[in-house]
Amino acid sequence: MSRRIRIVGIGSGHPDQITLEAAAAIASVDYVIAAAKSPDDPLLEARREICRRHGNPEVIAVPDPERDRMDPADYTGAVTHWHDARAAAYEQVLLERYGDAAFLVWGDPMLYDSTIRVVERIHERGNVHFDWDVLPGISSLQVLAARHRIVLHEVGQPTVITTGRRLHEAIADGAENIAVMLDAHLACADLAEPAQWHLWWGANLATPAEVLVAGSLDSVLPRVRREREVAKTASGWVMDTYLLRRRGSRR
Amino acid sequence: MSRRIRIVGIGSGHPDQITLEAAAAIASVDYVIAAAKSPDDPLLEARREICRRHGNPEVIAVPDPERDRMDPADYTGAVTHWHDARAAAYEQVLLERYGDAAFLVWGDPMLYDSTIRVVERIHERGNVHFDWDVLPGISSLQVLAARHRIVLHEVGQPTVITTGRRLHEAIADGAENIAVMLDAHLACADLAEPAQWHLWWGANLATPAEVLVAGSLDSVLPRVRREREVAKTASGWVMDTYLLRRRGSRR
Repeated sequence: MSRRIRIVGIGSGHPDQITLEAAAAIASVDYVIAAAKSPDDPLLEARREICRRHGNPEVIAVPDPERDRMDPADYTGAVTHWHDARAAAYEQVLLERYGDAAFLVWGDPMLYDSTIRVVERIHERGNVHFDWDVLPGISSLQVLAARHRIVLHEVGQPTVITTGRRLHEAIADGAENIAVMLDAHLACADLAEPAQWHLWWGANLATPAEVLVAGSLDSVLPRVRREREVAKTASGWVMDTYLLRRRGSRR
Repeated sequence: MSRRIRIVGIGSGHPDQITLEAAAAIASVDYVIAAAKSPDDPLLEARREICRRHGNPEVIAVPDPERDRMDPADYTGAVTHWHDARAAAYEQVLLERYGDAAFLVWGDPMLYDSTIRVVERIHERGNVHFDWDVLPGISSLQVLAARHRIVLHEVGQPTVITTGRRLHEAIADGAENIAVMLDAHLACADLAEPAQWHLWWGANLATPAEVLVAGSLDSVLPRVRREREVAKTASGWVMDTYLLRRRGSRR
């Protein structure tokens, strides 16, 4: 039987947000490879806790290559370089230790996550032979919608999922329901007509430090900034996600 | 303690695609309310099976009100009418039987599902008093991406989620990654430049009749049509989801 690499979505924070099939996948492997941004990376410890609950595979922490976030002129190039560095680091582990391995992905591997691309790259390099599969997980966007008890769109309407970096493009293209992820700088604070937008915002979703704010963008922004700091202080990190909806429909 | 209504995302077909928290929520209620399109509705039987596995709450089947799909001139009005009819039917059950109740939502309640709106409506009517919460589930779109082992977008790019009915609008607005749900008529077959698009398609995802097709839209359409019929014959119903990506990037 061929060696197997499994990319497992583990949900957005709470260990009970994992699916039964994802839990079984973790229990099925010989070890888990986890990127560590620092020796006391809190997300690494959360992965260890999930592994302890599901078959207790060994967790091998791999120092995450430095990523140059400072060159907006060549964002894609910087990301590609970072993917290559990650692929080389993980390949080294796979060459040193035989057996099935899993990568635990925060949220869902299908949204703003590099693991699929990195594993594809390892496969293409051809130094390690394996089959691989992907198991979906609950993304922070889904937790956001659930906590606010909202549908992402009005009846039958579209939603755009984008990044803080590209929020303004989505608005220029006429989007009216915009889900924003990976926004470290609260791009929605710069919108030209904040009173035209309703905001549903959340940070550190599904963790003990979860905070939620909803309301007209112009009126809730100061509270969002405050709550963002509260979450950061409580967790040592902050990840936020939000949905913007234009008031009234133009369609 | 107040009475509780729980809206529970149960994933897209396979019973192991449910989260631990969703399974616990099902086990926590006194009964489950499930819409039945017919006495032998296969989706009703799938819900019964999930309940049997998780605490075995009673499943109360409620005949689903007829929905007039034939009036495209007033789609939103027809949907609103249908939501009202569903709210009245479910309210009747809640008035007749005390206790906590759950609605099991195929996929995720945040995408193209009426349950949140219907429960909100029951709450607003004020005849039944309850608290309510929402638990996310794996949507068919996530299963599609996992099975094809893809990310929904290129690095840092946006994705539009829309319906077959609005696919052409998304293309006119310049979208390059388009996830299409609720498309009974394969709207992508009518695109002007099919060779410009890559298609990742799936039907009856996470069920035994699952079928997947991927390739250049112009070349794979005949196979998609054939596989769609195969899935329909195998399951007695067909639900498909797909991602379209424009070849090359214009950004």
